[in-house]
Amino acid sequence: MADSAGKCTIAVDTMGGDLGPTEFIRGLFYATEELKLECDFILVGKERLLTRLLKVRKLGIDPSRIRIHNATQVIGMDEKPIQALKQKKDSSMVQAIALLKAGEAQAVVSCGNTGALMAGGTLRMRPLPGVERPALATIVPSRKQPFVLADVGANPESTAENLVHNAVLGSNYAKAALGLERPRVALLTIGTEEGKGNSLINATHHHLQKLTSVINYVGPIEGFQLFDGDIDVVICDGFVGNIVLKSSEALFGFIGSTIKEELLRNPKRKIGAALSASAFKDMKVRLSPDQHAGAPLLGLQGNILKSHGSSNYVAIANALRIASNLVKHDMIDSIRNEINLANELIDVEEPA
Amino acid sequence: MADSAGKCTIAVDTMGGDLGPTEFIRGLFYATEELKLECDFILVGKERLLTRLLKVRKLGIDPSRIRIHNATQVIGMDEKPIQALKQKKDSSMVQAIALLKAGEAQAVVSCGNTGALMAGGTLRMRPLPGVERPALATIVPSRKQPFVLADVGANPESTAENLVHNAVLGSNYAKAALGLERPRVALLTIGTEEGKGNSLINATHHHLQKLTSVINYVGPIEGFQLFDGDIDVVICDGFVGNIVLKSSEALFGFIGSTIKEELLRNPKRKIGAALSASAFKDMKVRLSPDQHAGAPLLGLQGNILKSHGSSNYVAIANALRIASNLVKHDMIDSIRNEINLANELIDVEEPA
Repeated sequence: MADSAGKCTIAVDTMGGDLGPTEFIRGLFYATEELKLECDFILVGKERLLTRLLKVRKLGIDPSRIRIHNATQVIGMDEKPIQALKQKKDSSMVQAIALLKAGEAQAVVSCGNTGALMAGGTLRMRPLPGVERPALATIVPSRKQPFVLADVGANPESTAENLVHNAVLGSNYAKAALGLERPRVALLTIGTEEGKGNSLINATHHHLQKLTSVINYVGPIEGFQLFDGDIDVVICDGFVGNIVLKSSEALFGFIGSTIKEELLRNPKRKIGAALSASAFKDMKVRLSPDQHAGAPLLGLQGNILKSHGSSNYVAIANALRIASNLVKHDMIDSIRNEINLANELIDVEEPA
Repeated sequence: MADSAGKCTIAVDTMGGDLGPTEFIRGLFYATEELKLECDFILVGKERLLTRLLKVRKLGIDPSRIRIHNATQVIGMDEKPIQALKQKKDSSMVQAIALLKAGEAQAVVSCGNTGALMAGGTLRMRPLPGVERPALATIVPSRKQPFVLADVGANPESTAENLVHNAVLGSNYAKAALGLERPRVALLTIGTEEGKGNSLINATHHHLQKLTSVINYVGPIEGFQLFDGDIDVVICDGFVGNIVLKSSEALFGFIGSTIKEELLRNPKRKIGAALSASAFKDMKVRLSPDQHAGAPLLGLQGNILKSHGSSNYVAIANALRIASNLVKHDMIDSIRNEINLANELIDVEEPA
């Protein structure tokens, strides 16, 4: 991929999302016109459909920056990942990853089947040397600025070395996606005193303390500190991270619907709610994941971003923005270097 | 303890909470007068202080139902559990547990140092035969009725057998505290398809499927289903449960303060907020933990309930109510039987 240095082309799996390719094209317009992304794009999907959708209105950017790559198949949300990848070689997802592998693109963005994207991405792009298991990261709002949570589901059975790698991966993602210079990294646990938590956490904490030259490890944090905003990267295994992420989304919905129910209970409350409606709208925007919709699979030899299956055009545009930032920041090169350093510091043997 | 059959006396550690013994006495009044608890009470703490506090107003119940047990020391919230238990033999917490051990009380309620209560409770009351590790359970609100979450921190490094025991313990707690006949028990995981999750979850799921004669196991659930209200008992290890519980509390606070900020942003919103203020109050009551404030340490040979350090009198009264329900339901006897059955079904060897 030496000839691709400095280039930024994003391969977009347009067929995978719940809202279909129309939303992707809207997202592309929004990304180029409103967010002023300077990347080129390869739209992967059914060529005739995409051609028609692109003609709906005049593009605000040089048309040579966008090309279509035909892919006749679609991997459904409920398909079994490995089986789908094998049977649907001409799916938009498999083809988008192939463009990344071939160096024609420097990042893939997809709203499709998470399992298939993770499996396909890992199989084709392979983990970076020294990384045993990739990690899925996401950006979460807090009382102050948003933070990176990693891993949120790629690796549900982690070793201490995996968690150390998550710290390096998450730190690099925070630099590239959030523009931070020296992100504060913390380890999610229960009870922050030395020796609390469990043996996995204690071993990880022991390792992380040796990494001062690589990451800015600030120590363990507890669940109650998660949304304080004093940490930029929160590290956990994929089992814990997935449960925290999904239960938080569920709680957000539950609280929202409870407030709504209570506000509609009588006329006085309804009038009050109507007067203050904009407050709830603004709150939703502040806490919405749309601004930070790309969840990258970190630790691979290529940038692969998963956007939520139900992503709207704003979420898609922001996923494209984050993808372009990862490319611009040479995140993968930086991860490659720091993982080597980290493995030396914690005495992980070089892979054969 | 054969002579205590049918009795219900609760030993109350009045000195441990953040709000002090005054709040405990208010809680006692509320429990007996409003909630009509029929237990007797032993108030454990500084005798002169408690005597004075009891005289503030006329008791609504027969004074013979309440006695004071003098304890001159207090274990602070930040003290190291084992050290505190050793050095403060005459603390209200140690003395309350001693009354339980002696059969003078059938339950202990404390708002004190969680670590000390768990350690002291486990050391003095010992786990029931067949239970390797006790579990801390709590009751969480949902879209429908509340559910039991166990373990929320007692055992951060669980085996599959420990999780199976959590299922039996949690099921019994749901019966006694929530009045359910056949609580639906689910295992918290990521991805509910067979083989997803991790090896601990898979082994536990395998075991739980054999327990149909003991508990009503309905299968695995994911984080996004947590607040749906379709489950009565959610099982997890103490590491995951503690993080889920504390991060949920943190998120609740974060969302609340974000709404408040937005509502105060301009005069129109402020007026709206004033008109609908009662909606937020009612929501807080619905989602507040005060109704279900007792978190029992399950699996011991005695009922020990931890109430939140900052419990107000309503929370304290409800913890007393739950404690009395555990006694009335003979929860410990039921657990003793079901743990034996469960261990036979999953082939756990009898302890020597």
